[in-house]
Amino acid sequence: MTLSPTDRSTIKRGRNRAVTEREALHAVLDAALVCHLAVVVDGAPLVLPTGYGRDGDTLYLHGSTGARSLREAATGVPVCVGVTLVDGVVYARSVFDHSMNYRAAVIHGTAVPVTDPDAKRHALRVLTEHIAPGSWDYARPPTPKELAATAVLSLDLAEASVKIRSGPPGDEPEDVEANAKWAGVLPLRTVWGEPEPDPALVGDWDVPPHVTART
Amino acid sequence: MTLSPTDRSTIKRGRNRAVTEREALHAVLDAALVCHLAVVVDGAPLVLPTGYGRDGDTLYLHGSTGARSLREAATGVPVCVGVTLVDGVVYARSVFDHSMNYRAAVIHGTAVPVTDPDAKRHALRVLTEHIAPGSWDYARPPTPKELAATAVLSLDLAEASVKIRSGPPGDEPEDVEANAKWAGVLPLRTVWGEPEPDPALVGDWDVPPHVTART
Repeated sequence: MTLSPTDRSTIKRGRNRAVTEREALHAVLDAALVCHLAVVVDGAPLVLPTGYGRDGDTLYLHGSTGARSLREAATGVPVCVGVTLVDGVVYARSVFDHSMNYRAAVIHGTAVPVTDPDAKRHALRVLTEHIAPGSWDYARPPTPKELAATAVLSLDLAEASVKIRSGPPGDEPEDVEANAKWAGVLPLRTVWGEPEPDPALVGDWDVPPHVTART
Repeated sequence: MTLSPTDRSTIKRGRNRAVTEREALHAVLDAALVCHLAVVVDGAPLVLPTGYGRDGDTLYLHGSTGARSLREAATGVPVCVGVTLVDGVVYARSVFDHSMNYRAAVIHGTAVPVTDPDAKRHALRVLTEHIAPGSWDYARPPTPKELAATAVLSLDLAEASVKIRSGPPGDEPEDVEANAKWAGVLPLRTVWGEPEPDPALVGDWDVPPHVTART
Protein backbone atom coordinates (compact mmCIF):
# COMPACT_ATOMS: atom_id res chain seq x y z
CA MET A 1 0.00 0.00 0.00
CA THR A 2 1.34 3.40 -0.90
CA LEU A 3 0.73 6.66 0.88
CA SER A 4 -2.19 8.74 -0.37
CA PRO A 5 -0.75 12.21 -0.62
CA THR A 6 -2.90 15.29 -0.74
CA ASP A 7 -1.51 18.56 -1.99
CA ARG A 8 0.00 19.45 1.38
CA SER A 9 1.50 16.01 1.94
CA THR A 10 3.09 15.96 -1.51
CA ILE A 11 6.77 16.69 -1.22
CA LYS A 12 7.71 19.64 -3.39
CA ARG A 13 11.43 19.71 -2.72
CA GLY A 14 13.80 16.82 -3.29
CA ARG A 15 11.25 14.48 -4.83
CA ASN A 16 13.99 11.91 -5.21
CA ARG A 17 14.12 11.78 -1.41
CA ALA A 18 10.39 11.12 -1.06
CA VAL A 19 9.46 7.56 -0.25
CA THR A 20 5.91 6.58 -1.02
CA GLU A 21 5.71 3.21 0.64
CA ARG A 22 3.55 2.90 3.71
CA GLU A 23 6.05 0.43 5.17
CA ALA A 24 8.66 3.20 5.17
CA LEU A 25 6.29 5.45 7.15
CA HIS A 26 5.72 2.70 9.68
CA ALA A 27 9.45 2.05 9.95
CA VAL A 28 10.24 5.71 10.68
CA LEU A 29 7.50 5.93 13.29
CA ASP A 30 8.60 2.69 14.93
CA ALA A 31 12.25 3.73 15.06
CA ALA A 32 11.79 7.09 16.82
CA LEU A 33 10.63 7.69 20.39
CA VAL A 34 9.25 11.22 20.33
CA CYS A 35 7.21 13.18 17.80
CA HIS A 36 6.67 16.91 17.43
CA LEU A 37 2.96 17.71 17.59
CA ALA A 38 1.95 21.05 16.07
CA VAL A 39 -1.38 22.79 16.58
CA VAL A 40 -2.60 26.32 15.94
CA VAL A 41 -3.31 28.35 19.08
CA ASP A 42 -4.63 31.91 18.69
CA GLY A 43 -3.49 31.92 15.07
CA ALA A 44 0.10 30.98 15.91
CA PRO A 45 1.73 27.57 15.65
CA LEU A 46 2.61 25.63 18.81
CA VAL A 47 4.93 22.65 18.54
CA LEU A 48 5.70 20.38 21.47
CA PRO A 49 7.50 17.06 21.90
CA THR A 50 4.97 14.31 22.50
CA GLY A 51 5.09 10.60 23.21
CA TYR A 52 3.34 8.32 20.75
CA GLY A 53 2.76 4.76 19.66
CA ARG A 54 1.54 3.21 16.41
CA ASP A 55 -1.07 0.52 15.85
CA GLY A 56 -1.47 -0.23 12.16
CA ASP A 57 -2.39 3.04 10.51
CA THR A 58 -3.37 4.75 13.76
CA LEU A 59 -1.01 6.96 15.71
CA TYR A 60 -1.75 7.42 19.41
CA LEU A 61 -0.53 10.63 21.02
CA HIS A 62 -0.23 10.87 24.71
CA GLY A 63 0.22 13.36 27.47
CA SER A 64 -1.18 14.89 30.58
CA THR A 65 -4.77 16.12 30.45
CA GLY A 66 -3.27 19.49 31.37
CA ALA A 67 -0.88 19.72 28.39
CA ARG A 68 -1.94 22.62 26.21
CA SER A 69 -1.04 21.11 22.83
CA LEU A 70 -3.05 17.99 23.64
CA ARG A 71 -6.01 20.01 24.91
CA GLU A 72 -6.01 22.03 21.70
CA ALA A 73 -5.50 18.99 19.50
CA ALA A 74 -8.44 17.26 21.19
CA THR A 75 -10.89 19.94 20.05
CA GLY A 76 -11.00 18.58 16.50
CA VAL A 77 -8.62 21.13 14.98
CA PRO A 78 -6.08 20.18 12.32
CA VAL A 79 -2.76 18.90 13.66
CA CYS A 80 0.59 18.13 12.11
CA VAL A 81 3.05 15.60 13.51
CA GLY A 82 6.74 15.46 12.61
CA VAL A 83 9.10 12.59 13.40
CA THR A 84 12.75 12.88 12.43
CA LEU A 85 15.76 10.60 12.84
CA VAL A 86 19.16 12.06 11.99
CA ASP A 87 21.46 9.37 10.60
CA GLY A 88 24.58 11.36 9.82
CA VAL A 89 26.23 14.53 8.64
CA VAL A 90 27.07 14.68 4.93
CA TYR A 91 30.41 16.42 4.36
CA ALA A 92 30.43 17.58 0.75
CA ARG A 93 33.27 19.13 -1.23
CA SER A 94 31.30 22.38 -1.29
CA VAL A 95 29.61 24.12 1.63
CA PHE A 96 26.43 24.31 -0.43
CA ASP A 97 26.10 20.54 -0.85
CA HIS A 98 26.60 19.77 2.84
CA SER A 99 23.58 17.92 4.09
CA MET A 100 22.31 15.44 6.62
CA ASN A 101 21.22 11.87 6.22
CA TYR A 102 17.86 11.44 7.86
CA ARG A 103 14.49 9.71 7.91
CA ALA A 104 11.56 12.07 8.39
CA ALA A 105 7.80 11.56 8.48
CA VAL A 106 5.17 14.29 8.47
CA ILE A 107 1.52 13.49 9.18
CA HIS A 108 -1.48 15.77 8.68
CA GLY A 109 -4.91 15.13 10.12
CA THR A 110 -7.43 15.76 12.82
CA ALA A 111 -6.78 14.14 16.15
CA VAL A 112 -9.66 12.42 17.93
CA PRO A 113 -9.71 12.04 21.71
CA VAL A 114 -9.78 8.43 22.90
CA THR A 115 -12.25 8.39 25.77
CA ASP A 116 -13.84 4.93 25.86
CA PRO A 117 -12.04 3.16 28.76
CA ASP A 118 -11.29 -0.03 26.81
CA ALA A 119 -10.05 1.93 23.78
CA LYS A 120 -7.96 4.15 26.06
CA ARG A 121 -6.42 1.14 27.78
CA HIS A 122 -5.58 -0.33 24.37
CA ALA A 123 -4.04 2.96 23.22
CA LEU A 124 -1.96 3.22 26.39
CA ARG A 125 -0.73 -0.33 25.92
CA VAL A 126 0.35 0.60 22.38
CA LEU A 127 2.05 3.76 23.65
CA THR A 128 3.77 1.96 26.53
CA GLU A 129 4.97 -0.88 24.29
CA HIS A 130 6.42 1.69 21.90
CA ILE A 131 8.36 3.62 24.52
CA ALA A 132 9.16 0.78 26.92
CA PRO A 133 8.45 -2.63 25.35
CA GLY A 134 7.47 -5.18 28.00
CA SER A 135 6.52 -2.60 30.60
CA TRP A 136 2.76 -2.94 30.11
CA ASP A 137 2.83 -6.52 31.40
CA TYR A 138 5.60 -5.93 33.96
CA ALA A 139 4.70 -2.68 35.71
CA ARG A 140 1.72 -1.89 37.90
CA PRO A 141 -1.26 -1.20 35.61
CA PRO A 142 -2.97 2.20 35.59
CA THR A 143 -5.70 2.83 38.13
CA PRO A 144 -9.00 4.36 36.96
CA LYS A 145 -7.80 7.67 38.42
CA GLU A 146 -4.50 7.47 36.51
CA LEU A 147 -6.37 6.55 33.32
CA ALA A 148 -8.56 9.63 33.75
CA ALA A 149 -5.52 11.86 34.20
CA THR A 150 -4.03 10.72 30.90
CA ALA A 151 -5.08 12.30 27.62
CA VAL A 152 -4.84 10.08 24.57
CA LEU A 153 -5.51 11.20 21.02
CA SER A 154 -5.78 9.08 17.94
CA LEU A 155 -4.59 10.28 14.54
CA ASP A 156 -5.16 8.49 11.25
CA LEU A 157 -2.00 8.00 9.19
CA ALA A 158 -3.83 8.41 5.87
CA GLU A 159 -2.28 11.76 4.98
CA ALA A 160 1.46 11.44 5.44
CA SER A 161 4.76 11.83 3.68
CA VAL A 162 8.15 10.27 4.25
CA LYS A 163 11.46 11.71 3.16
CA ILE A 164 14.71 9.80 3.47
CA ARG A 165 18.23 10.86 2.57
CA SER A 166 21.05 8.34 2.70
CA GLY A 167 24.40 7.77 1.08
CA PRO A 168 27.33 9.96 0.06
CA PRO A 169 27.25 13.67 -0.79
CA GLY A 170 25.73 14.91 -4.03
CA ASP A 171 28.51 17.28 -5.06
CA GLU A 172 28.60 19.17 -8.32
CA PRO A 173 30.41 17.18 -11.07
CA GLU A 174 33.17 19.81 -11.30
CA ASP A 175 33.84 19.56 -7.55
CA VAL A 176 34.04 15.76 -7.74
CA GLU A 177 36.35 15.94 -10.74
CA ALA A 178 38.65 18.45 -9.03
CA ASN A 179 39.20 15.82 -6.30
CA ALA A 180 40.55 18.63 -4.13
CA LYS A 181 38.53 18.06 -0.93
CA TRP A 182 37.67 15.08 1.22
CA ALA A 183 34.00 14.18 1.19
CA GLY A 184 31.97 11.59 2.97
CA VAL A 185 29.47 10.86 5.69
CA LEU A 186 29.92 10.90 9.44
CA PRO A 187 27.22 8.50 10.66
CA LEU A 188 25.23 9.27 13.78
CA ARG A 189 23.86 6.41 15.84
CA THR A 190 21.58 6.20 18.82
CA VAL A 191 22.64 3.58 21.34
CA TRP A 192 21.30 2.43 24.68
CA GLY A 193 23.59 2.81 27.67
CA GLU A 194 23.82 0.63 30.77
CA PRO A 195 20.59 0.49 32.81
CA GLU A 196 20.71 2.80 35.84
CA PRO A 197 18.69 1.25 38.70
CA ASP A 198 16.59 3.62 40.80
CA PRO A 199 18.57 4.35 44.01
CA ALA A 200 15.27 3.93 45.88
CA LEU A 201 15.22 0.17 45.14
CA VAL A 202 15.74 -1.90 48.29
CA GLY A 203 17.85 -5.06 48.18
CA ASP A 204 19.47 -6.85 45.24
CA TRP A 205 17.72 -6.59 41.91
CA ASP A 206 18.44 -8.04 38.51
CA VAL A 207 17.51 -5.73 35.67
CA PRO A 208 14.43 -7.42 34.15
CA PRO A 209 14.79 -9.12 30.74
CA HIS A 210 12.47 -6.69 28.92
CA VAL A 211 14.94 -3.91 29.78
CA THR A 212 18.18 -5.79 29.16
CA ALA A 213 16.77 -7.17 25.87
CA ARG A 214 16.80 -3.65 24.50
CA THR A 215 20.51 -3.00 24.95
CA MET B 1 20.20 36.22 32.11
CA THR B 2 16.93 34.35 32.42
CA LEU B 3 14.37 33.66 29.75
CA SER B 4 11.55 36.16 29.37
CA PRO B 5 8.47 34.01 29.13
CA THR B 6 5.22 35.31 27.76
CA ASP B 7 1.97 33.50 28.46
CA ARG B 8 2.50 31.00 25.66
CA SER B 9 6.12 30.32 26.56
CA THR B 10 5.30 29.78 30.22
CA ILE B 11 5.30 26.09 30.98
CA LYS B 12 1.99 25.05 32.50
CA ARG B 13 2.74 21.39 33.04
CA GLY B 14 5.62 20.01 35.08
CA ARG B 15 6.88 23.35 36.30
CA ASN B 16 9.58 21.52 38.23
CA ARG B 17 10.97 20.49 34.85
CA ALA B 18 11.12 24.03 33.50
CA VAL B 19 14.54 25.58 33.39
CA THR B 20 14.65 29.32 33.17
CA GLU B 21 18.30 29.92 32.48
CA ARG B 22 19.24 31.21 29.09
CA GLU B 23 22.42 29.11 29.21
CA ALA B 24 20.25 25.99 29.33
CA LEU B 25 18.43 27.12 26.18
CA HIS B 26 21.73 27.68 24.42
CA ALA B 27 23.01 24.28 25.56
CA VAL B 28 19.95 22.45 24.19
CA LEU B 29 20.16 24.27 20.86
CA ASP B 30 23.89 23.63 20.58
CA ALA B 31 23.54 19.93 21.38
CA ALA B 32 20.92 19.06 18.75
CA LEU B 33 21.32 19.07 14.96
CA VAL B 34 17.79 19.49 13.65
CA CYS B 35 14.82 21.55 14.77
CA HIS B 36 11.13 21.25 13.96
CA LEU B 37 9.86 24.46 12.41
CA ALA B 38 6.10 24.96 12.57
CA VAL B 39 4.11 27.50 10.59
CA VAL B 40 0.42 27.94 9.84
CA VAL B 41 -0.57 27.28 6.22
CA ASP B 42 -4.22 27.74 5.21
CA GLY B 43 -5.22 27.60 8.87
CA ALA B 44 -3.51 24.27 9.52
CA PRO B 45 -0.16 23.68 11.18
CA LEU B 46 2.80 22.50 9.11
CA VAL B 47 5.88 21.16 10.89
CA LEU B 48 9.06 20.23 9.07
CA PRO B 49 12.58 19.26 10.13
CA THR B 50 14.94 22.15 9.48
CA GLY B 51 18.65 22.78 9.85
CA TYR B 52 19.71 25.59 12.11
CA GLY B 53 22.57 27.33 13.84
CA ARG B 54 22.80 29.69 16.81
CA ASP B 55 24.69 32.94 17.14
CA GLY B 56 24.14 34.46 20.57
CA ASP B 57 20.40 34.94 20.92
CA THR B 58 19.72 34.58 17.22
CA LEU B 59 18.66 31.31 15.63
CA TYR B 60 19.30 30.93 11.91
CA LEU B 61 17.04 28.57 10.00
CA HIS B 62 18.05 27.26 6.67
CA GLY B 63 16.68 25.51 3.65
CA SER B 64 16.05 25.63 -0.04
CA THR B 65 14.29 28.71 -1.39
CA GLY B 66 11.68 26.24 -2.65
CA ALA B 67 10.89 24.73 0.76
CA ARG B 68 7.30 25.55 1.65
CA SER B 69 7.76 25.97 5.41
CA LEU B 70 10.62 28.41 4.86
CA ARG B 71 8.69 30.34 2.22
CA GLU B 72 5.75 30.65 4.60
CA ALA B 73 7.96 31.50 7.56
CA ALA B 74 9.65 34.24 5.54
CA THR B 75 6.40 36.16 5.09
CA GLY B 76 6.49 37.53 8.61
CA VAL B 77 4.00 35.07 10.11
CA PRO B 78 4.42 33.64 13.60
CA VAL B 79 6.57 30.53 13.80
CA CYS B 80 7.32 28.01 16.49
CA VAL B 81 10.53 25.97 16.70
CA GLY B 82 10.92 22.80 18.75
CA VAL B 83 14.24 21.11 19.55
CA THR B 84 14.22 17.88 21.55
CA LEU B 85 16.96 15.54 22.74
CA VAL B 86 15.85 12.22 24.22
CA ASP B 87 18.27 11.11 26.95
CA GLY B 88 16.65 7.91 28.13
CA VAL B 89 13.56 5.90 28.92
CA VAL B 90 12.36 6.04 32.52
CA TYR B 91 11.08 2.65 33.67
CA ALA B 92 8.83 3.29 36.65
CA ARG B 93 7.19 0.77 38.97
CA SER B 94 3.83 1.82 37.54
CA VAL B 95 2.89 2.19 33.88
CA PHE B 96 1.54 5.65 34.67
CA ASP B 97 4.86 7.00 35.92
CA HIS B 98 6.86 5.76 32.95
CA SER B 99 8.52 8.73 31.29
CA MET B 100 11.45 9.86 29.23
CA ASN B 101 14.49 11.84 30.19
CA TYR B 102 14.90 14.66 27.72
CA ARG B 103 16.00 18.22 27.04
CA ALA B 104 13.50 20.25 25.04
CA ALA B 105 13.41 23.85 23.86
CA VAL B 106 10.44 25.64 22.31
CA ILE B 107 10.83 29.06 20.70
CA HIS B 108 8.08 31.41 19.56
CA GLY B 109 8.59 34.39 17.32
CA THR B 110 8.49 35.88 13.87
CA ALA B 111 11.20 34.80 11.48
CA VAL B 112 12.93 37.44 9.39
CA PRO B 113 14.51 36.59 6.01
CA VAL B 114 18.24 37.25 5.87
CA THR B 115 18.82 38.82 2.47
CA ASP B 116 21.85 41.12 2.77
CA PRO B 117 24.72 39.13 1.18
CA ASP B 118 27.17 39.74 4.03
CA ALA B 119 24.56 38.90 6.66
CA LYS B 120 23.55 35.78 4.70
CA ARG B 121 27.15 34.67 4.42
CA HIS B 122 27.55 35.13 8.18
CA ALA B 123 24.36 33.18 8.86
CA LEU B 124 25.45 30.34 6.58
CA ARG B 125 28.80 30.21 8.35
CA VAL B 126 26.96 29.88 11.68
CA LEU B 127 24.69 27.19 10.23
CA THR B 128 27.56 25.27 8.65
CA GLU B 129 29.67 25.45 11.81
CA HIS B 130 26.74 24.08 13.81
CA ILE B 131 26.10 21.10 11.54
CA ALA B 132 29.67 20.45 10.37
CA PRO B 133 32.23 22.36 12.46
CA GLY B 134 35.31 23.22 10.40
CA SER B 135 33.60 22.78 7.04
CA TRP B 136 33.14 26.49 6.36
CA ASP B 137 36.90 26.98 6.16
CA TYR B 138 37.65 23.59 4.59
CA ALA B 139 35.05 23.16 1.86
CA ARG B 140 34.55 25.18 -1.33
CA PRO B 141 32.68 28.39 -0.39
CA PRO B 142 29.23 29.11 -1.82
CA THR B 143 29.06 30.85 -5.19
CA PRO B 144 26.73 33.85 -5.61
CA LYS B 145 24.28 31.53 -7.41
CA GLU B 146 24.39 29.02 -4.54
CA LEU B 147 23.91 31.80 -2.01
CA ALA B 148 20.85 32.97 -3.91
CA ALA B 149 19.39 29.45 -3.93
CA THR B 150 19.61 29.22 -0.14
CA ALA B 151 16.90 30.66 2.08
CA VAL B 152 18.01 31.79 5.52
CA LEU B 153 15.72 33.06 8.23
CA SER B 154 16.66 34.65 11.50
CA LEU B 155 14.61 34.14 14.66
CA ASP B 156 15.13 35.98 17.92
CA LEU B 157 15.42 33.70 20.96
CA ALA B 158 13.66 36.18 23.28
CA GLU B 159 10.50 34.12 23.73
CA ALA B 160 11.53 30.61 24.60
CA SER B 161 11.11 27.89 27.16
CA VAL B 162 13.28 24.96 28.17
CA LYS B 163 12.11 21.81 29.84
CA ILE B 164 14.49 19.16 31.12
CA ARG B 165 13.77 15.84 32.80
CA SER B 166 16.60 13.80 34.24
CA GLY B 167 17.13 11.24 36.95
CA PRO B 168 15.21 8.24 38.28
CA PRO B 169 11.47 7.62 38.05
CA GLY B 170 9.02 9.58 40.16
CA ASP B 171 6.91 6.68 41.39
CA GLU B 172 4.10 6.98 43.90
CA PRO B 173 5.33 6.50 47.50
CA GLU B 174 3.24 3.33 47.92
CA ASP B 175 4.81 1.78 44.80
CA VAL B 176 8.30 2.60 46.05
CA GLU B 177 7.52 1.18 49.47
CA ALA B 178 6.10 -2.04 48.01
CA ASN B 179 9.54 -2.61 46.38
CA ALA B 180 7.83 -5.13 44.10
CA LYS B 181 9.09 -3.94 40.71
CA TRP B 182 12.44 -2.96 39.25
CA ALA B 183 12.68 0.69 38.32
CA GLY B 184 15.37 2.75 36.71
CA VAL B 185 16.55 4.56 33.62
CA LEU B 186 17.80 3.15 30.34
CA PRO B 187 19.99 5.95 28.99
CA LEU B 188 19.99 6.79 25.30
CA ARG B 189 23.12 8.25 23.75
CA THR B 190 23.92 9.64 20.36
CA VAL B 191 27.35 8.63 19.09
CA TRP B 192 29.30 9.28 15.92
CA GLY B 193 30.29 6.27 13.84
CA GLU B 194 33.36 5.79 11.67
CA PRO B 195 33.64 8.30 8.81
CA GLU B 196 32.49 6.82 5.48
CA PRO B 197 34.55 8.35 2.64
CA ASP B 198 32.69 9.17 -0.58
CA PRO B 199 33.36 6.28 -3.04
CA ALA B 200 33.85 8.98 -5.70
CA LEU B 201 37.09 10.16 -4.04
CA VAL B 202 40.13 9.36 -6.18
CA GLY B 203 43.39 8.21 -4.57
CA ASP B 204 44.34 7.93 -0.92
CA TRP B 205 42.75 10.37 1.45
CA ASP B 206 43.11 10.96 5.17
CA VAL B 207 39.90 11.98 6.85
CA PRO B 208 40.48 15.67 7.67
CA PRO B 209 41.00 16.65 11.32
CA HIS B 210 37.79 18.70 11.59
CA VAL B 211 35.87 15.48 10.88
CA THR B 212 37.93 13.08 13.00
CA ALA B 213 37.92 15.60 15.87
CA ARG B 214 34.20 15.05 16.22
CA THR B 215 34.34 11.30 16.85
